[in-house]
Formats: sequence, structure tokens, C-alpha cells
Amino acid sequence: MCRFTFYQGEPIRLSALVTEPEHSLINQSFDSREGEEPLNGDGFGVVWYVPELTNAPGRFRGVSPAWNNANLHEIARVVTSPCVMAHVRAATQQLAVSELNCHPFVVDRWSFMHNGDIGGFGRIRRALLAQLSDARFDSIRGSTDSEHFFALLLDELESEAVDPDVEAISRAFQRGLERIAGLMFAHAPGEHLYINAVLTNGADAVACRYTTDAPEEGSSLHLNQGQRYICEDGVCRMIDTVHSGSVIVSSEPLSDDPGWTTFRPNSMVLLSGNRVARTVAL
Amino acid sequence: MCRFTFYQGEPIRLSALVTEPEHSLINQSFDSREGEEPLNGDGFGVVWYVPELTNAPGRFRGVSPAWNNANLHEIARVVTSPCVMAHVRAATQQLAVSELNCHPFVVDRWSFMHNGDIGGFGRIRRALLAQLSDARFDSIRGSTDSEHFFALLLDELESEAVDPDVEAISRAFQRGLERIAGLMFAHAPGEHLYINAVLTNGADAVACRYTTDAPEEGSSLHLNQGQRYICEDGVCRMIDTVHSGSVIVSSEPLSDDPGWTTFRPNSMVLLSGNRVARTVAL
Amino acid sequence: MCRFTFYQGEPIRLSALVTEPEHSLINQSFDSREGEEPLNGDGFGVVWYVPELTNAPGRFRGVSPAWNNANLHEIARVVTSPCVMAHVRAATQQLAVSELNCHPFVVDRWSFMHNGDIGGFGRIRRALLAQLSDARFDSIRGSTDSEHFFALLLDELESEAVDPDVEAISRAFQRGLERIAGLMFAHAPGEHLYINAVLTNGADAVACRYTTDAPEEGSSLHLNQGQRYICEDGVCRMIDTVHSGSVIVSSEPLSDDPGWTTFRPNSMVLLSGNRVARTVAL
Amino acid sequence: MCRFTFYQGEPIRLSALVTEPEHSLINQSFDSREGEEPLNGDGFGVVWYVPELTNAPGRFRGVSPAWNNANLHEIARVVTSPCVMAHVRAATQQLAVSELNCHPFVVDRWSFMHNGDIGGFGRIRRALLAQLSDARFDSIRGSTDSEHFFALLLDELESEAVDPDVEAISRAFQRGLERIAGLMFAHAPGEHLYINAVLTNGADAVACRYTTDAPEEGSSLHLNQGQRYICEDGVCRMIDTVHSGSVIVSSEPLSDDPGWTTFRPNSMVLLSGNRVARTVAL
Repeated sequence: MCRFTFYQGEPIRLSALVTEPEHSLINQSFDSREGEEPLNGDGFGVVWYVPELTNAPGRFRGVSPAWNNANLHEIARVVTSPCVMAHVRAATQQLAVSELNCHPFVVDRWSFMHNGDIGGFGRIRRALLAQLSDARFDSIRGSTDSEHFFALLLDELESEAVDPDVEAISRAFQRGLERIAGLMFAHAPGEHLYINAVLTNGADAVACRYTTDAPEEGSSLHLNQGQRYICEDGVCRMIDTVHSGSVIVSSEPLSDDPGWTTFRPNSMVLLSGNRVARTVAL
Repeated sequence: MCRFTFYQGEPIRLSALVTEPEHSLINQSFDSREGEEPLNGDGFGVVWYVPELTNAPGRFRGVSPAWNNANLHEIARVVTSPCVMAHVRAATQQLAVSELNCHPFVVDRWSFMHNGDIGGFGRIRRALLAQLSDARFDSIRGSTDSEHFFALLLDELESEAVDPDVEAISRAFQRGLERIAGLMFAHAPGEHLYINAVLTNGADAVACRYTTDAPEEGSSLHLNQGQRYICEDGVCRMIDTVHSGSVIVSSEPLSDDPGWTTFRPNSMVLLSGNRVARTVAL
Repeated sequence: MCRFTFYQGEPIRLSALVTEPEHSLINQSFDSREGEEPLNGDGFGVVWYVPELTNAPGRFRGVSPAWNNANLHEIARVVTSPCVMAHVRAATQQLAVSELNCHPFVVDRWSFMHNGDIGGFGRIRRALLAQLSDARFDSIRGSTDSEHFFALLLDELESEAVDPDVEAISRAFQRGLERIAGLMFAHAPGEHLYINAVLTNGADAVACRYTTDAPEEGSSLHLNQGQRYICEDGVCRMIDTVHSGSVIVSSEPLSDDPGWTTFRPNSMVLLSGNRVARTVAL
Repeated sequence: MCRFTFYQGEPIRLSALVTEPEHSLINQSFDSREGEEPLNGDGFGVVWYVPELTNAPGRFRGVSPAWNNANLHEIARVVTSPCVMAHVRAATQQLAVSELNCHPFVVDRWSFMHNGDIGGFGRIRRALLAQLSDARFDSIRGSTDSEHFFALLLDELESEAVDPDVEAISRAFQRGLERIAGLMFAHAPGEHLYINAVLTNGADAVACRYTTDAPEEGSSLHLNQGQRYICEDGVCRMIDTVHSGSVIVSSEPLSDDPGWTTFRPNSMVLLSGNRVARTVAL
């Protein structure tokens, strides 16, 4: 099913998301509690923005399980960033595990990661590809439904302002959902869409929890915001939840502190300025 | 903890052990039922003897989880052999996952795989290395307790005949157990030894279930012998359990057929001529 | 540029092609003499047919350089086959090195490998994909021009008999060349096609040396046929070149024996019954 | 033979050493000009200090060739550091390529990388290990002569001050050379030592070019110091070579600018405060 964590806020060491919390993303890679299976061992990826250097974020991906990748632990230990995406994968086709299929996907300044499924994707793929601009068709490197959906979103962003604000990103995302639902209606009727995902340009982000299935069939998604997320003596928590300064969106709560809230089914959270700007019902 | 499967008998397709049975070794790599944890995702190895070509068996190892390694599935699908070792690993130190530490270990015609632990190994390693012959000291490539124990066994085999029979192999193995227990007594008192293991030269083999801890703390080990182990229409089973022709030793039964028996705690099974020659209490 | 070796004949140990000859394919992976660059270090693949077990050949691929892959050496040492493809890759886009892009490509009983380039492939890819049958569209796993061309060939084979003989395979291949040339004419005029390639179903094969550029711009391709290709005391050679029993097609001669002949520019060799059936000018 | 680059100075993007210069370290991985062979494709490693976060530097290693590792390009693009080690490897035993054997080696705050050879290492290894402290014996993870020599150096550093200055580091290194030469004299007489290496704690460093063979048999090593090393419009160079602020030690010059000087045979350069403190004849 996959699990993921997104962070926006004061520069944070990646380890505070990926390795240090009691239920860190790496812990979720072998002991997921809210997924269908405990195991997300088919690769991983982290993306971090470095605004002082470049708009194009850095990325480190691998097909090994996150829990035993020494390089991932090293990078998490020494890299800090104000905007981080991290993802662990459970492949639906285990024999097509490839670095090219590891989330997050990145095109220029945009990053995207997904937990879920586009039902009947094999039947809609040709039609979806036919709709893409040449640039987006060419930028697809792997074979996941997720990366193809990201390409749709990027095409939708083309009709917004060059530097879209969070509302514009949200509009593009919603049109993307409509288009994929339309493709499923035409080519894979009866299938369901499951889209827990985050899309960001490093400054603003939208996080989505959506399914066309019964709401309780959607994957879990949680949010925590406050002044700062810190790890001390092996315990991680969000401090000062009254003031905003940092926000985490995560498939499962990383820690036991009380600030974690659950996404409403079929909702989208707009994140800007290191806090929740608005929540939209889908 | 690790899980493993050993086969001796009529040439068999590796897939009949590794991928096809309901509870194949690959199934045990993510859904072990008798281990402490369900997960054995830190690499794998298969060894197969090809007596018509060479005494030195072929080996394929990798650090990826067995379940998502396309090459392992391919090789299992097309390779047949009369003597097979297969192992999936749960590393005790996850950040030292390396192909060099994947079982089975092979030196010349000898292969060895292990599921268990030499308690306090860090404290006995220098003393163990000091006891080894130069040849065995030089042949160690990785850092596992298992490979070091294999080196001890190979040194013990030197004092047997050049072509030892199964009784001689068993004697050497038992002396190896005594030596490792002696090293633990001297350098890591209070620690326990857990040795589920198979040692073979492709013709004869010994399989051991042993612990110095309470017998119920030892890992599981099972045996099935009969005329032939076959997979038909997705169901695998040993046929004609009255006649001998094939024998399987496995951490967990591969299939639901009734022929599987459990190793007695602290016992060693001597395998020769594709059947159990004798069982020894340790 | 890539280098490759194809073998059809008496069952041969893979090592006699891949590791043992003085100028084995592994030697060509770091010391190619007839390629533009000496280096083919971006992955490798071997395919071997096992007619007594299955029509679908086994395959082992990896992204590491062929020269330092211990598993490749092991497999080559113990596997024998009457029909072998082996390929070492020099990626044109080095940052898209992926196992999915390593040759040979396999679909059911068919295998294909390529050394060369479809000029302007990025501009013809959408049009090529649009022409494919659904089955072939779905079977593409990677992003190479080679795999896309293979999909075209498989579609062409559909219009031949279910079990095409070598003449039918050759016709399908030639129609495939015409179609790719047509796509280039329409979408990438002025670009050139370079197709050194082998296509086989394990029984019959066609090997092609073709370019639309000046003939001397085509890659090298060599052939050796005789009774048997053997390696003794570190020296490999074809014995008894009068009688047929084995044939090798290789980007570069594997050994110094005098039997190696050069493919005529723009020619196709039809291989059947372990010997050259016919040569066709293209 | 291996190639390496060391940097100390104003925080620099790793890409300015590893990917951007005309003869960057990645270029040296397939087109080395001063090594015996052009190829250093058996893995790589980069180490970078992050003094504002931790004394223990970050490290990224891999067994793939440096030239086709997408993660290495990504990390080099977005990571900056005031102290960097980078190494590309040509393994002497190609079938023992393992991440554990990739330089630089790191223990606590200390990093070490080596280009060269300890002749007859197999014969002195047991004696060398026997001399090590328990801590250093236990910290060895791989099998290279380089990592074993590093362990000797760390033991020698124990007899210096807890926070040794560059003179103390240099003394420890020289005693290490004496000890390894003594071991060779006793156990591998007639063999030669080739040690081009850098040892650093992130603040001070020593770089050594040494051989017991004829001086011209030693590997190449070059130095460039000035105010800052910059890359503009695809051209990299050291600017303002009068003022000190940055120093590079590299197996081969990274760029064509005139500041590069060659290490004298059998010399050691002491680096402190982002400049050469002193040169010592060995």
C-alpha cells in the first residue's frame, strides 16, 4: 500500500521524520499499523528542498528496504531541510521493483508521492498517455499509476499561473482527480480510485485523502502542526501546538504526542507558510 | 532469525522449493509463521550442485528481499539440481547488510547455512580467528558469526578423511559445536548458542537443531522424505513417503502434506543417498 | 554502443562465451576493441534456453558492470544451454541505468538484443507506441529504443504462422526494419538507424547488421561456425569448421582462432539447425 | 588503482568536485589519465562534514560505477560542505566488490581514503590484526588493505592528545607508515608499499604520497590552493591563488587552471585552516 511523510516548516533534520520517532517512516516500512499489510519493503525515496541553492529538490531513492539501507540512515542524519517528502513502497507487482518506480517523483521544482491505487490502471493507461502533452509524455520514466497521475497534474498546472499559489495548485489537483475519474469511467468502469497523495513545489503543498470507494476503505492520513517538531532523548513530539511554524502530514502518526489529527475522508488540506491554510471537502 | 530449506534427491526445479509451494521459502521471507518475527527481508542465497559439471556448486546471492528479486524467480524457474540449499536472512545488524554476509557460505565443494545466533559473538571473535588455520582465516569474506563457525567446521573436517562420509562429517560438526561452546564458556559466559544449520558437500549432509538454551527456545526445523516432491496445479507435496528418493529439511513446512515431521530438540540428522541415514541426539 | 554474443549449438557452458575466452564478452565490457569506446559498463544480461523444461528462457540481468558481478561469474560457470544470448550495455543516458533497460528483452519464448541506435527515437516514440497492439504496448517495461523495436517485431510476427520458421522470422524482421525506417522518415528525418541485433525463439534465429548510414559507420559483427566451440587450458576455439554443429554471432571475435568471419554490411544471417541457413542482403 | 579528491575550505557544493569540472572525479572514474588503467568503475564514496550539526561526517557509498549513479549526481548537486572526501575505486579483486570495501572509511569523526597497495597484504593481515586494539579490531567492516591501515592509524592517534592538532595527526600517520613497513619487512619481504592517502577529522588533514618502490612508481597526486574554487558556465577553477581559503588535493587535476602543483614524491602535506600548513619529506 505504501506509507509516506511530508514536512513543511523550520529546517529539520531528515532523521526526525525518517529514523528517530518511535513510529518513524522506517518503522512503518516493516511495522505499519494502519495499512493492510505491515510491510512496505519494496524501496523508498526522500526528497528535500534546498531553497538557498536551487529550486529543484534533491532526491535519494533505492530499491532496498528502507530499514536496512545504510546510506538512507547517513543522509537522514546529516541533511536538514524546510520541505521534505519521504516514502516507503509496497509494490503491487513485486517483480517490477525498480528505482524508476520509487516515489517521490520529481519534475523540475515539483514533487509528488502517492499511497493508493488507480483501479484498472492497465486499461486506462493508453488513453491517459494519449492525453498528455509531449513534455509530460517524455518525462515519464517508470510504469506506476502514480507517476502517470503526476503527469496529468503537471499538465493541469500548465493552465494555472507560472508561479501558482496554493489555491491554484489545489484547483489543478482537483481537475486531475476529475480527469482520472473520467478515464476510469470510460475504460475501467466499476473500479475504484484511492489517492492519498502530496504535491508540492517546495513552497506550497496540497495533501489529499480521497477514494471513490466507501470512505472507510480509504487509507489513513494524519496531520500535526505546531511551532516545531523536536526529538530529544529518543522522544519526538510537536511542541507549542498553538503557534504555527511546522506541519507534518503522515500516513501514520510518527509519535505519541497528542497533536495528531486524522484527515477527514475525501478531503484536501492546503499547506502554505508552514501551516494549514484551508481544508477542502472533495 | 533467518529461514532455510535444504534438498537432496532426484533433480528438482529450484522453484519447487523456493517459489511454488504455498509456504515456499519466499513466502517465509515475508510471512514466517514459526520465527520470532514474520520478516526475513535482508537478503537471500541459493546454492545448487551440478555434479555432471563440477564439484563446486553454483551460487546466487543478493541483498534485496527474496520476494521481489526477479532474477531469483527466473533462476528458480529454469535450474534443476539434486542438491539445493536456499536461505532468507533477517540480519541482526541491519546496517551491515551485504552480499558477503548472505548465506549459504561456500568453500570449494562445501556449503553451509545457519539460522540462529552465537551469543556474545563479538567477544569470542578474536579468539576464534586466532584458532583458525591460515587457509580458513583467509577464506572468511564477511562478518557473520555463521561464516566464522563454518570456518571452524572446515578446519575440523581437515582431520577427517579427504572424502569424508556422512559419519565423519557429523563427527567434525559435533567437534565444531564443542569448540564454539568452549569459546563461549571462556569469553562470553552466560550467553547461549542457537545452531540450526546444514552442512553438505553435495553428496552427504548433516542438518542440526541445537541450542544451549531451554529446548523450546530453539528455532523450528522440519523434515520430509519420500519418493519425490512434486508441484502440480499449484499444490506441492511429497509423494510415496514409504520409498526414499528425496528428502527436504526446512525451517518451516513448505506445504500442507502430512509427511512433515519436526526435528527433536538438540538432534542432528545425517543425510546420505537421498534419505535419512541416522539421527543423533546432541 | 553495447556488445553482444549469441550462441546456437551443442549445449555449452555459458562461461565459454562470457568469461573464459581471451576476448570474452566480459572482456569486451571493459576493453572493447571495435566499439567507439572501450567501455560497456552499464549493466548486462544473459538469456539461456532450457528446451527440456520450458519454452520460456531463463534470464539473469543486472545494472552492475559485468566484470565485477560475482553472480554472473557463478551462473556462467554452472549453466549449460543450446541457445544463449549475452549482452553488455553502454547506456546512452547514463542516469537512466535500470535493470528494466538491460538486454536481452524477453517476451514468452522470444528474446531480442540490440547494439546500435534508432536516431531521433524521442521524436518517434509516441507514433511507434500508437501503432502497437495492446499486448505489445503492455509488455514494454523499460524506455530503450531497442525494447520498443522488439515490440514492433513481435507484432509483425503475429502475421506469420504460429510457429514461424526461420524464413518467416526473417520476413517479420525485415518488415519491422521498414516500419521503423518509415517512422523515422515521418518524424525524425535525417536521422540514421543502426541495428545490429539478434532475434530468436530458441530454435531459429536471425542476426542482423544494418545501418541507413554509410556502411562503414555500422557496428562490427562477426560469425564463427563449426562442430563445437571448446575451451581448454585457457584457450577457446571452434573445432572442425567443416562440419556444422555450433554457430556464434558476436560483436567482436571471442578468440584468436581463424574461423571468425565478418558480417557483410547490411546483411542478415538466418540461423537454423545450429548452422547458417542463408544470408540475405538488406 | 583508484582516484580521489579531498577538499577543505569555504563550503562548496560537492558537484564542484565530483561532477562539474572537465576532469571531475566522475570523469576520472572512466577516463583516468594518470592511472595505470583508465577505469575506476568498482564503486565510489563521498564523505562530507557538517560541523554545525555533528562531528561525525555524512557518507554515501555505492558499488555501482560513479558515472551512472543517479543518487550520487543528486547528492552532489544539493549538498555543500567545508570538508569533503570523494573516492572512485578500481578493485584489485573484482569479485569482492562490496559497499563495505568502498572508501572513504569512517570511524567517529575520522575519515580515511587510499589509492595504492600494501604489497603482500594477505601475508601480513593476521599479524596486523593481532596488533590492533579491541576497539579497532571490532571497527573493521570490510577486507581491504586500506581499512586495515586506517585501523593502525587510529590506534596511533590514541597516543596523541584527545584533540590532536595537524602536527600530531602527521606524527601518528608517520608512525603508522613505519609499522606497516615493519610488518611487510617481517612477513612479506620484497613487497612494496604504495600509499597515496588522506586522513582528516574534518578540521585538520594530512595528505600523503608515498612508496617504498622507485619514486616514479608512486601514483600521481596534485594540489591546488587559493581563495575559492568556483564553477561558472561549465568551467571550474581556483580563483585568487594568492590568498588562502580553500585547498584541493586530487589524484588528477580537476581542471585546466594553472594553480595545480604536483606532490613531491614521498612527501606529506599538512592542511589546517583551509591552507597548507607545512610539507614534510618522508
